[in-house]
Amino acid sequence: MSSKHQPIRHVAIVGGTHGNEITGVYLIKKYQNFVELLQGYDFSIELLTANSEAVAANKRYIDCDLNRSFKIEDLSNNSLLGYENQRAKEINQQLGPKGNSRVDFIVDLHTSTAPMGVNLVLLNDDPFHLKLADYVQQRMDNVTITWEQLPDHHFLMSIAPRHILIEVGATPQGSLRHKIFEQTEQATTHVLNFIEAYNKQELPVSSSSLEVYKYFDVMYLPQDSQGNIIGMVHDNIQDRDFGLLKTQDAIFKLFDGSDIVYEGEECYIAFINEAAYYDEKKAFSMAKRVVLSIG
Amino acid sequence: MSSKHQPIRHVAIVGGTHGNEITGVYLIKKYQNFVELLQGYDFSIELLTANSEAVAANKRYIDCDLNRSFKIEDLSNNSLLGYENQRAKEINQQLGPKGNSRVDFIVDLHTSTAPMGVNLVLLNDDPFHLKLADYVQQRMDNVTITWEQLPDHHFLMSIAPRHILIEVGATPQGSLRHKIFEQTEQATTHVLNFIEAYNKQELPVSSSSLEVYKYFDVMYLPQDSQGNIIGMVHDNIQDRDFGLLKTQDAIFKLFDGSDIVYEGEECYIAFINEAAYYDEKKAFSMAKRVVLSIG
Repeated sequence: MSSKHQPIRHVAIVGGTHGNEITGVYLIKKYQNFVELLQGYDFSIELLTANSEAVAANKRYIDCDLNRSFKIEDLSNNSLLGYENQRAKEINQQLGPKGNSRVDFIVDLHTSTAPMGVNLVLLNDDPFHLKLADYVQQRMDNVTITWEQLPDHHFLMSIAPRHILIEVGATPQGSLRHKIFEQTEQATTHVLNFIEAYNKQELPVSSSSLEVYKYFDVMYLPQDSQGNIIGMVHDNIQDRDFGLLKTQDAIFKLFDGSDIVYEGEECYIAFINEAAYYDEKKAFSMAKRVVLSIG
Repeated sequence: MSSKHQPIRHVAIVGGTHGNEITGVYLIKKYQNFVELLQGYDFSIELLTANSEAVAANKRYIDCDLNRSFKIEDLSNNSLLGYENQRAKEINQQLGPKGNSRVDFIVDLHTSTAPMGVNLVLLNDDPFHLKLADYVQQRMDNVTITWEQLPDHHFLMSIAPRHILIEVGATPQGSLRHKIFEQTEQATTHVLNFIEAYNKQELPVSSSSLEVYKYFDVMYLPQDSQGNIIGMVHDNIQDRDFGLLKTQDAIFKLFDGSDIVYEGEECYIAFINEAAYYDEKKAFSMAKRVVLSIG
């Protein structure tokens, strides 16, 4: 663990950062309607529907992706226009400010149209976050951990120094799937229980190491010179999230009938054919699997 | 077959009637780019992207559902506002007018977020349409046939006297799935081949009867007195489209943890937890299975 024990006093659970990922939106509503579910912890919990306009429109975002809008330089840039840039500043005021935040911990609830299982997204590889991810993974099936370190991250949860993003799939956008909802709620409960045990310095013994997927690149959908999509993710890799992609594996079926094969080095792939990423024409994310010691 | 043989001379293939069902949109693009795919038939084929504004916005519709906008009374009602009501009139001019249409046959391409397989939607139970559905069903796996008869139907394809709607799933909205795309293309090819054989009076012998699902009611998501959704489609029925629903089967899991059971008569259910139907808070469609003789 980090040398100094810093108890967590204020937690925010956030849903609807993407407006059409309604599992988190309805889990927030459930917590609002059944307040006893969040009682008994030794820290305060507040609930936030982050992008309420996008929720109302059943869209990922109105003007730009809210979960790409929390870089420190963007939060202080008043020339940025559009609903989400404004909303990011409001949320930063409400929970932050980033770098010196009122809340100590943020849980941000997301879903994927890809069968990601329960995917925990970390921005830091310090012992606190590795133990947190390990704690959840030891208590649920089908948990994977990804790690996206950047000097100044753009995610909403980066407002707080400690945080976790819970991304569960597969579910269509704008739809509530019973099992996906349950997994999201269970993962959130495990996170809250971890924080309680951490605060009391009663954490169970963790694993000695943690397997994490570290993204290093993105593959784009096949396009012509004008940027028109000319093919699809190949059935050969569809629904094989966190599987191994080998050199020469077919990755795209073009509309002309031909296959495109992968020519890079062996890697793991995720967010395969994620519907939310068609705006950027992304086909899948590429990761290395690394094993980190839990200090 | 109908007593008089009436060859089909003009066919329209329509995609993007719902803007976020992009499988049809891209199949239309594929046909535009590979014109040889539609050559050699003894009838003309034209291609139409029906709701191009909704396609651009990656939404089902802009103002209202285009595929509910083709009743004769609505097509002649100039007080109806909004993009889709205007667009319906344009399409009716282009392909119709309904009741005396220029095109003889319309294929309308749709997808579902539910695992509907290849679902053929009929509006008529005359020998032509039953033989058409039987022809496709004999040539592909996982084909189901539904029948939605109304005196003046609201579907786009009702412009033409003969028509078929091909609805394939499961696929997320705004996403191209290789297998779903292939099934859509294959079903379309079978429809065109049927028309060619019909025109030449060379249809193969059909089955003697056809099993069709006839919708009779809709079940809505559980709601409180203000219309707020208070639960989800139960995992017990999720992904069991065209399966049998029995009295006392659990159909909803409420957020308070309790189950709601079905209290009606045994029936078949489809469009289970369809994301597109959350705007109307529909949970699933209920059907009777009937066997129709192919005359």
